[in-house]
Amino acid sequence: MDNTGRVTAAVLIIGDEILSGRTQDTNLNAIARFVGAHGVDLAEGRVVGDDETEIVAALNALRTRYDYAFTTGGIGPTHDDITADCVAKAFGAPLYEHPEIMAMLTARWGAEVTPARRRMARVPEGATLIKNPVQGPPGFQIGNVFVLAGVPAIMRGMLEDIGWRLKGGAVVVARTLRVEGSGEGVIAAPLEAVAKAYPKLSLGSYPFFGPEGYGSNLVVRGRDPEEVAAAVQALNTALTDAGVAKLYEVDA
Amino acid sequence: MDNTGRVTAAVLIIGDEILSGRTQDTNLNAIARFVGAHGVDLAEGRVVGDDETEIVAALNALRTRYDYAFTTGGIGPTHDDITADCVAKAFGAPLYEHPEIMAMLTARWGAEVTPARRRMARVPEGATLIKNPVQGPPGFQIGNVFVLAGVPAIMRGMLEDIGWRLKGGAVVVARTLRVEGSGEGVIAAPLEAVAKAYPKLSLGSYPFFGPEGYGSNLVVRGRDPEEVAAAVQALNTALTDAGVAKLYEVDA
Repeated sequence: MDNTGRVTAAVLIIGDEILSGRTQDTNLNAIARFVGAHGVDLAEGRVVGDDETEIVAALNALRTRYDYAFTTGGIGPTHDDITADCVAKAFGAPLYEHPEIMAMLTARWGAEVTPARRRMARVPEGATLIKNPVQGPPGFQIGNVFVLAGVPAIMRGMLEDIGWRLKGGAVVVARTLRVEGSGEGVIAAPLEAVAKAYPKLSLGSYPFFGPEGYGSNLVVRGRDPEEVAAAVQALNTALTDAGVAKLYEVDA
Repeated sequence: MDNTGRVTAAVLIIGDEILSGRTQDTNLNAIARFVGAHGVDLAEGRVVGDDETEIVAALNALRTRYDYAFTTGGIGPTHDDITADCVAKAFGAPLYEHPEIMAMLTARWGAEVTPARRRMARVPEGATLIKNPVQGPPGFQIGNVFVLAGVPAIMRGMLEDIGWRLKGGAVVVARTLRVEGSGEGVIAAPLEAVAKAYPKLSLGSYPFFGPEGYGSNLVVRGRDPEEVAAAVQALNTALTDAGVAKLYEVDA
């Protein structure tokens, strides 16, 4: 928790396939929504390739700065799956074959527990397992770091075993006013005036345009629902005074 | 260009809406594919919020380490659009109102060029403009940094005015072998053996599973098409020897 009472997290997306453009990441977004619902703000994201030096440096930067760090990717059985090694190195903790994962692998594969599959049983000493309700081996937690799969369906399944571990602050409330037919050039001044009047809130403008028309979604975010409501009311008034004609609240 | 002849780039995604989970970023992926086609490797990605200290620190870290840095987001007219200010600060260059952008704004808005709209005319001294063929004001380049819009359709339009500015290396060739009905536990050993035999190439395994079956896409990436072809052949042989029955090359 920082000196504003905010509880923060960072996401480290690991994988050459994201940086090459082969794969569109969706894990950062899923984790952002997940931690937000638990009163934790995602404060930074990073994407690095399958490179030990890069992964260790990024993980150490993030885990020491934020309350929580999540990694996704690189926990499979192939040679480029080096996340467990990197996390162990970052924490200075040796890897060992976790008996619970070895038991799962043996139950699943019997005599076919190849050396590659055994790689997936390795976790750093001091880690606890994160259940994988979908397919394959579990993730793990060590300190404030959660090590998750890269495949989105598996990653999201693992989040189900993380909520109870997070000590979040107050959940952020977001309300959205949708303006149609007025551009940001008209919106900006009243928006800024209200933002200055409510310095503890975050006010953002997200323009849209297309064949169906143009306008902007104005989002008011904060931890105190009454303060957010007051700012939405003030914004409504300020926009109307500035000549914005079409304006209504939406769920978004 | 680093000591391996690789030309590198980084992407800095700017915006609270990405970190809150409200918006799914697609710009990193689009830039990754774009620079890859120009022989430039995306080497790192970062996501930060609308915070001057964070943006300046991340931009300085990335622009000094990589050949190119791309930013997306924060160039609109509202109070939370502070990217131009941050880039100016990072470069120690003052902002000024670019006459070409002022002319565009005046042509579009006439007397309605509000102070908010004028904000969009501000670029750091020494910047050159990046054409925006879609809607709104241009982006800009200063040094090795490209400052682009956050709205994906506009961002992609701006990329059309960037290709000619990039001095890339050899374009990476990627070929994909698709394995069906064999898991990574079987694939890992032959894959690792081929990866060790071709240390200049990148070999990755991207598993899939679902109602339609399971398997993995094995991607061989490198700059020398003949070396990539030799590795694909070697991988084909090694997988067949390891008992993989269904295996074919796909475009992916």
